[in-house]
Amino acid sequence: MKAQTRESHINPRRGGMSVRSIARRALLLSLLSSGLLGLRLGSATAQDAPLPSWNDGITKKSITDFVARVTAPGSPDFISPEQRIATFDNDGTLWCEQPIYFQFAFALDRIRSMAPQHPEWKTTQPFRGVLEKDMKALAASGEKGLLQIMAATHAGMTTEQFSEAVTDWIAFARHPRFNRPYTELVYQPMLELLAYLRANGFKTFVVSGGGVEFMRPWMEKVYGIPPEQVVGSSGSVKFAIGSDGKPELTKLTKIEFIDDGPGKPAGINRFIGRRPVFAFGNSDGDLQMLQWTTAGASARFAGIVRHTDADREYAYDRQSKIGKLDKALDAAAAKGWTVVDMKSDWRKVFPD
Amino acid sequence: MKAQTRESHINPRRGGMSVRSIARRALLLSLLSSGLLGLRLGSATAQDAPLPSWNDGITKKSITDFVARVTAPGSPDFISPEQRIATFDNDGTLWCEQPIYFQFAFALDRIRSMAPQHPEWKTTQPFRGVLEKDMKALAASGEKGLLQIMAATHAGMTTEQFSEAVTDWIAFARHPRFNRPYTELVYQPMLELLAYLRANGFKTFVVSGGGVEFMRPWMEKVYGIPPEQVVGSSGSVKFAIGSDGKPELTKLTKIEFIDDGPGKPAGINRFIGRRPVFAFGNSDGDLQMLQWTTAGASARFAGIVRHTDADREYAYDRQSKIGKLDKALDAAAAKGWTVVDMKSDWRKVFPD
Repeated sequence: MKAQTRESHINPRRGGMSVRSIARRALLLSLLSSGLLGLRLGSATAQDAPLPSWNDGITKKSITDFVARVTAPGSPDFISPEQRIATFDNDGTLWCEQPIYFQFAFALDRIRSMAPQHPEWKTTQPFRGVLEKDMKALAASGEKGLLQIMAATHAGMTTEQFSEAVTDWIAFARHPRFNRPYTELVYQPMLELLAYLRANGFKTFVVSGGGVEFMRPWMEKVYGIPPEQVVGSSGSVKFAIGSDGKPELTKLTKIEFIDDGPGKPAGINRFIGRRPVFAFGNSDGDLQMLQWTTAGASARFAGIVRHTDADREYAYDRQSKIGKLDKALDAAAAKGWTVVDMKSDWRKVFPD
Repeated sequence: MKAQTRESHINPRRGGMSVRSIARRALLLSLLSSGLLGLRLGSATAQDAPLPSWNDGITKKSITDFVARVTAPGSPDFISPEQRIATFDNDGTLWCEQPIYFQFAFALDRIRSMAPQHPEWKTTQPFRGVLEKDMKALAASGEKGLLQIMAATHAGMTTEQFSEAVTDWIAFARHPRFNRPYTELVYQPMLELLAYLRANGFKTFVVSGGGVEFMRPWMEKVYGIPPEQVVGSSGSVKFAIGSDGKPELTKLTKIEFIDDGPGKPAGINRFIGRRPVFAFGNSDGDLQMLQWTTAGASARFAGIVRHTDADREYAYDRQSKIGKLDKALDAAAAKGWTVVDMKSDWRKVFPD
């Protein structure tokens, strides 16, 4: 079984076969099963085949089969290049989202760095809780506290100042468990998937509940996805001519759009204006995006990253507070969507 | 002068010149001024040079000089391809906007076609005014009436149904003066400009006060601008699973975003996430987009289409109710932005 799957990746787009190619195939199979060629072929395959960090199996095959099916000229499922819109959730799909959303880690760090200018925070919740790392007090402040933290750290500055703050933080902050920059905690198999889709004429978009202005400063470099292909939640901005005569956009506390759950199809409609043919998520917040994607008329692909690997990353699903995967997992089973089992499907989780 | 300008278009990117090329240039100039080669060169130039529907002169030259300056490798003003974002207003910049915005013509036609299902409209303003073509009653209904017309024609259906309604209307409706489909009342020189910019590595966007879902169904075909590069005003949508089990997005009456005036830099920030280096508008509603564009650090281009041609199109500016051009015209003079004089700068207005 394994040998067969491997072999199919040597010639992933093989159509009809000549006598010679059948003979070669038989020879390869026999060599493979006898193990003689194993090592050499292994490295050759890794170099030539797409998605090298994905283990061979039905998950990887569901992706490569779909792409072959919709890109082969003359295929009944052919999709024209301009319709090849692929959307990806970010937190938990393209990068890690534990133990807290990375954008929230940014907000907490920012409270700490802004504290000298805000002496009143020493005695006011939820800020005091952040400064004293009193997670109980922080949790007690509830959604109101969360909104206060987001407002204090994400508003009241120009869009350019905010972009700089994000860029600075991304460069220096380290994840508490892995002690690596957050942008190194992206999933290597998903980076390969993005590149593979683009190589096959897809236009890749991020469609995330995260703040669009938090994501754009680093995504082009890390994912190869330019700012104009990043869809996310946003706050209002105010245009004004500054004191230096230059126009400015200032970030306000008013939340303008939440790109999560039913907001994802709405965001796709508003920002992209075309229904995706390929979508990937990891949580119930992605359910509606996957429903919207797969309800289109042509061939469609829906994928879910399931976090099953407590050793290399984290293991969580139906009971998790962050990235809860429950209804979308049931929908995947009912609809035959692809569910990635991180532990068994991914040869590698993070880039080296 | 004319011969010189022409000649510069034979070799628009000429840098240093060899003796041979100087000799050829001198020969060409003498032939040109003697008129011997006039006709033949005229057609050759039209074929080879960019922007054939633009008359030679400072307006055209300001565009081609800018593009040469920011795209020539090694140029001090070089702008990397991913930063070459160009934004265009639509109404009055890419297509005609008189005697009424074309989207409003669509709304009025739609009231008429929906009237059989709304017998109450025969006796209720502003609908009665539309059905009886009583423009006085319509005007008397004011902004409230306008919003009622927009709500009745732009909400209460799925996004797909609306897209079909637009596509149908665009195919059959005719402009009252020119008796041509509205999509033929696009400006040929601007179509050439869009193509010229794209050929030079720019990514072209529409940033318009018009409804984004009114524009997307036809812009890819007419302008070569895909839906995901169209920014516009929008209403809220509601996601729900329909009675057939399929997810739907239904258009609501709530206005979500007005992409006009200060809304244009906000829309650019939200949808594109990068500051344009090239922007074109035609009215005071574009002023902030042009200010925002030109306040960037690298070389920038701002252009304004001035409607000066009552014979071939329309002539209007400071006093017009539609497409008022007053403050932006003053700003253009103060800042040295390019102002297109439609009458003298454009050899042709609409495509043949």
